[in-house]
Amino acid sequence: MARPLIALLTDFGLRDHYVGTMKGVALGICPEASLVDISHDVAPQDVVGAAVELVDAYRYFPSGTVFLVVVDPGVGSTRRAIAAEAGQYRFVAPDNGVLSAVLDQVPSERVVELTESKYARSPISKTFEGRDRFAPAAAWLASGVQISALGSPVSSLVRLNLPRPLTTGAGIEGEVLRVDRFGNLITNIDLATLGSLTEPMTVRIGSQVITQVVSTYASAKPGELCALVGSSDRLEIAVSGGSAAETLGLGRGATVQLRRSA
Amino acid sequence: MARPLIALLTDFGLRDHYVGTMKGVALGICPEASLVDISHDVAPQDVVGAAVELVDAYRYFPSGTVFLVVVDPGVGSTRRAIAAEAGQYRFVAPDNGVLSAVLDQVPSERVVELTESKYARSPISKTFEGRDRFAPAAAWLASGVQISALGSPVSSLVRLNLPRPLTTGAGIEGEVLRVDRFGNLITNIDLATLGSLTEPMTVRIGSQVITQVVSTYASAKPGELCALVGSSDRLEIAVSGGSAAETLGLGRGATVQLRRSA
Amino acid sequence: MARPLIALLTDFGLRDHYVGTMKGVALGICPEASLVDISHDVAPQDVVGAAVELVDAYRYFPSGTVFLVVVDPGVGSTRRAIAAEAGQYRFVAPDNGVLSAVLDQVPSERVVELTESKYARSPISKTFEGRDRFAPAAAWLASGVQISALGSPVSSLVRLNLPRPLTTGAGIEGEVLRVDRFGNLITNIDLATLGSLTEPMTVRIGSQVITQVVSTYASAKPGELCALVGSSDRLEIAVSGGSAAETLGLGRGATVQLRRSA
Repeated sequence: MARPLIALLTDFGLRDHYVGTMKGVALGICPEASLVDISHDVAPQDVVGAAVELVDAYRYFPSGTVFLVVVDPGVGSTRRAIAAEAGQYRFVAPDNGVLSAVLDQVPSERVVELTESKYARSPISKTFEGRDRFAPAAAWLASGVQISALGSPVSSLVRLNLPRPLTTGAGIEGEVLRVDRFGNLITNIDLATLGSLTEPMTVRIGSQVITQVVSTYASAKPGELCALVGSSDRLEIAVSGGSAAETLGLGRGATVQLRRSA
Repeated sequence: MARPLIALLTDFGLRDHYVGTMKGVALGICPEASLVDISHDVAPQDVVGAAVELVDAYRYFPSGTVFLVVVDPGVGSTRRAIAAEAGQYRFVAPDNGVLSAVLDQVPSERVVELTESKYARSPISKTFEGRDRFAPAAAWLASGVQISALGSPVSSLVRLNLPRPLTTGAGIEGEVLRVDRFGNLITNIDLATLGSLTEPMTVRIGSQVITQVVSTYASAKPGELCALVGSSDRLEIAVSGGSAAETLGLGRGATVQLRRSA
Repeated sequence: MARPLIALLTDFGLRDHYVGTMKGVALGICPEASLVDISHDVAPQDVVGAAVELVDAYRYFPSGTVFLVVVDPGVGSTRRAIAAEAGQYRFVAPDNGVLSAVLDQVPSERVVELTESKYARSPISKTFEGRDRFAPAAAWLASGVQISALGSPVSSLVRLNLPRPLTTGAGIEGEVLRVDRFGNLITNIDLATLGSLTEPMTVRIGSQVITQVVSTYASAKPGELCALVGSSDRLEIAVSGGSAAETLGLGRGATVQLRRSA
């Protein structure tokens, strides 16, 4: 059997010991696990941001990966803690919608609430369930425990309404989902939506009209705005060698429109 | 035997190659080790900050973990480099007090100075003993070398005076030890100290009086100041869904008082 | 056989999922690999900065390490993707000069262009070859595939002209290559160049003349400017307990001169 892999996604940052502590707990349970950080710099308590980061990353991980997702504004409250099996993956997270985007793509076959106390630390801190409940659950799954052992079945989950692209007679209406380190503006207009297009399109964002749809950042001249389908199979607005976010002064939530080229 | 685990805590940051280089050296000696970062964002040369981060994290790591702690303003000088065995853990660090808080909780049974040159790289850089002396020592310990082989016994260590809470007739006087990513103000008033209380208390910090002592962040209304016992078993001042540090304009060293509710 | 080790150096930052995704891909191919981050905070598209970071770090990694270096302004364009074997190491990178400084020290014995599609993901994103081409190639090398299997031999590589120190009748002229987290100014004046000196020297940088050449940061008084040979075997300008970069208001590219002490 391949070494088990736990992939972590949180809003804990890397300055405090919180992520390290969760890893210590996980390796105490499953010492042979490999641990991979997806990100710990999700904005504090930004469940939507985490959902987007997760959906753009998970499918590149090997079969069997356990995702440990802790962005949890309701920590310690009555919101449920869950584990979900979906396709070839397992996910451990609060039931706050952070798995919504993934479960839209890969329906979950089995979801349980993390109620079985022998797979948690005791006592469970009311302010750090990541350490005491989620990390142990992920590590037990990685070490071979079946998801059904972790708690009682759950039938319906909290869902987020992530903004979806809209196809109209005039074209496509979408918005920026994520801004990356390079200042690329990554939209919710995905390949499936783009695939319905039969005519050349221009891209409108802010006060700009972008006619330059390219295949790589380097195809545009340095400093030029361009649009391309990026590595997440989504339409991105970029500036070659620069930052589209800075150039346009725009970020998450900005409207993006595709219109037939005149 | 479980895979050995080395947990790292430094002030090196993650921008430079320093942490990676230490890990390369460690894995050259002990290739099967798992490496976990506690933090590398301790403020430069902040020995007290590192001591607090370590004491709040170490006990969640599995038995046998080797802690590699390099916050070392005296690098290259005559300050000693040490390895300590305490409880089920081993620690490698400069002898500058960074282990004080841990050793107050778990007295060390054996401490040696890292004098044995065959367990260090040669030559030892006078500005980066983390790479040439501490990382090798930690990796040799992880690979099974006994602590006594690393050098000569040491009897007394440099100790820091970390601020301790004071119980008076009027209540408890403490201070903020650490501010985390979420802006929570984590104090030195621990469960043991709180356990002596027999009456309801209010918490005073800055110009505020906090009567709301809650069990979870989510129990307070969004934006409200509250006090709770956090995941490190210390009194914390928090703002639900916000940052207490920003709301109060306070940080490490701020005075916190517990007074009988009128 | 020791566990394989892949060391990563990119400009992707840690906020986005990009580094995690590359690691997921790599562990899907070579689950037993250890992954070590050298840095992901190279400034966006700063090939020279990455070359310097790599050359100062690589030699501390164990024999057999595969370096996965992705700082790639030309991603998706016609620039080649390569793998190089040099000394006891293998390197996977774009052919943009990022390996220049290393290959000046350890001439490569074998370089191939990454043309063999069975060792890449398919399709290959034009904006994220790190995930689809470089990470798979590194993981296949780590898992035992020979470099010659990855593609066709390449004879000449793109080279960067990194600034070199100049020895003149008057002394040595160099420049700051890198500023680290502590504000140390690390120059291109290396031990080999310094070894040619036969007389005591003063160091000039900005408007300052530094006569204090020390062996450790702690040898200077707090706040004092000093010069020393740092852990990369290069001349560094430092401020004991402070930041030389801030004190001097200088950074990368600043001129440094060594002159005979009057």
